[in-house]
Amino acid sequence: MIRIVGLNGSLRPGSHSKQALQLALGNAKRLGASVELLDLQVLRLPFCNGGDVYPEYPDVEYLKSTVREADGLILATPEYHGSVSGVLKNALDLMGFEELSGKVTAAISILGGQSNSNALNDLRIITRWVHAWMIPEQVAIGQAWKAFDAEGNITDPKLAGRLEELAKSLVDTARRLRSETEAIAS
Amino acid sequence: MIRIVGLNGSLRPGSHSKQALQLALGNAKRLGASVELLDLQVLRLPFCNGGDVYPEYPDVEYLKSTVREADGLILATPEYHGSVSGVLKNALDLMGFEELSGKVTAAISILGGQSNSNALNDLRIITRWVHAWMIPEQVAIGQAWKAFDAEGNITDPKLAGRLEELAKSLVDTARRLRSETEAIAS
Amino acid sequence: MIRIVGLNGSLRPGSHSKQALQLALGNAKRLGASVELLDLQVLRLPFCNGGDVYPEYPDVEYLKSTVREADGLILATPEYHGSVSGVLKNALDLMGFEELSGKVTAAISILGGQSNSNALNDLRIITRWVHAWMIPEQVAIGQAWKAFDAEGNITDPKLAGRLEELAKSLVDTARRLRSETEAIAS
Amino acid sequence: MIRIVGLNGSLRPGSHSKQALQLALGNAKRLGASVELLDLQVLRLPFCNGGDVYPEYPDVEYLKSTVREADGLILATPEYHGSVSGVLKNALDLMGFEELSGKVTAAISILGGQSNSNALNDLRIITRWVHAWMIPEQVAIGQAWKAFDAEGNITDPKLAGRLEELAKSLVDTARRLRSETEAIAS
Repeated sequence: MIRIVGLNGSLRPGSHSKQALQLALGNAKRLGASVELLDLQVLRLPFCNGGDVYPEYPDVEYLKSTVREADGLILATPEYHGSVSGVLKNALDLMGFEELSGKVTAAISILGGQSNSNALNDLRIITRWVHAWMIPEQVAIGQAWKAFDAEGNITDPKLAGRLEELAKSLVDTARRLRSETEAIAS
Repeated sequence: MIRIVGLNGSLRPGSHSKQALQLALGNAKRLGASVELLDLQVLRLPFCNGGDVYPEYPDVEYLKSTVREADGLILATPEYHGSVSGVLKNALDLMGFEELSGKVTAAISILGGQSNSNALNDLRIITRWVHAWMIPEQVAIGQAWKAFDAEGNITDPKLAGRLEELAKSLVDTARRLRSETEAIAS
Repeated sequence: MIRIVGLNGSLRPGSHSKQALQLALGNAKRLGASVELLDLQVLRLPFCNGGDVYPEYPDVEYLKSTVREADGLILATPEYHGSVSGVLKNALDLMGFEELSGKVTAAISILGGQSNSNALNDLRIITRWVHAWMIPEQVAIGQAWKAFDAEGNITDPKLAGRLEELAKSLVDTARRLRSETEAIAS
Repeated sequence: MIRIVGLNGSLRPGSHSKQALQLALGNAKRLGASVELLDLQVLRLPFCNGGDVYPEYPDVEYLKSTVREADGLILATPEYHGSVSGVLKNALDLMGFEELSGKVTAAISILGGQSNSNALNDLRIITRWVHAWMIPEQVAIGQAWKAFDAEGNITDPKLAGRLEELAKSLVDTARRLRSETEAIAS
């Protein structure tokens, strides 16, 4: 079974990043994947000091082992100052090739103003640096304050459909790329 | 059989981009792929005017059909002003989703000065925009004037090895992602 | 007098990039600058081959000398495939430090779909590479097909205002940065 | 007098980012600026939750007021995963337009491996988003483990010279751009 882990890079109470991530993970689950949401609001993580060991922060090991054992990742971030949140980047800094290399990855960004791709672009380059795979599908949700209803669902069916495509591509690609079987010979 | 097409984005006589591209395509061929080099020095292409039809330039159709039928692409560019060459970008502008979507892609950049990743980053974002797949492996060749010998081979074995890994990942990924068979169920 | 040169990177007939550029240059003129629009639809330029001399293309020298003598630049580009047009990048490739270093620069992008900052981001990094100055103000015009009226004016007053602020910041910064007088001692 | 504030985005003991920042600030001081180093190793900052108030963290206000009163900034970051450190991005996330808009800014990055511009590019786009000015000069220090001597000085005179040019451009530009006097009329 394909295991998908979602990482929520927003600490805001009522975070729309978390809502979008839950929707995407729900889509992946319906496609047969097992899913887990790692909420940086709940994990107690230190600022990365460039080292590997943080004995006072057992959640670092939990983060690392959970991601290491996953087949695919969904990264959700608010776009702050035209880039990924420091909170999410710091969590990625705490990990390295051992956790992230070869991982199939999808990204979602949340903006207060109009939609834009900066944080998604940054995540694409960042994940490449640790040799993860980012799928072409990506979702930026602009004017997030009016994009969700009271139940945390996305009101625009087109946008909701894009979160479904994101999950479908992620699960399908993880199956293809991470299969232990030999690639089909040409 | 996997078909790989290489696109050389340098018009300089004795272009190192072309040399690197030839090496990468040779590697792909040894792995069982069929290969073809599209040399923008040879193709007669117009500047893109945002339209689809260039009746006076039959090479536009040749470029588009060759790329459309390929499984994978290798893009080679000199890094000019910290970005992809206008020559290569213009050739990409002449194509669209029909040619590029879903294509597995690798990128190589050539620099006169020290190595840098700007042109590679740009190509990663550009190819994403037309829903191509760029593999994590990429090669930037700095100080290119001293990187090649008289036969056009790369003198640094480590760098030559990275061109081999690039080709291997490209061919392997094209086999996995573009297979018509169903993905292996989890 | 501050001299501002505008470069239109679209070859499309009825180009919205040219319309937006004309508006921005008009704003700069009202602020006391002399302005000139270099239209890549009119200039006959070759593809850059990495060399410095193009004897069959006298417009290369015209482009270079016009930009060299300017104090400020406005670059207008359609966003193609999530980046600057190959046409504009090629024109920039034909120039170098001699023309572009120290130049105060503003950028405008035109999109068929929703607004985005990719081409503007790219131009910011590209112009930095040749040590030009790009002002913080920038304008991306999304859904351009409905943004202009029949006279080529922008219908949204807020967006029109942003083109005015762009011109104001450009002219003001060119005056401050390119003054031959000594900087005011602290 | 021009006030320059430096922000060190590395928490590593013996941080080379801090060494490079100290050198750049020393250069600015010799040019007549007042300088202050804000060390994120010393400031006690929370992860940004998207809000404005952190009553349990008085250092947030100290960071904000110190930056708000500065004329220029120097941002120093290790390049982690091909981007700015989460630590530095988080500190920037804690601030906004009020602190950063109009600020003249320079950036330095430190890499363990070969030199690269990714973190510098990211900082250029990030600071633009809050309408700061980033100067064209920038310094990436590759293979930092062998770039400094025991006293924290840079052994390569050319690289040391680039840190001097960075400081000179920063101080000079801050004087020109932030002067209260009218710009010299053309």
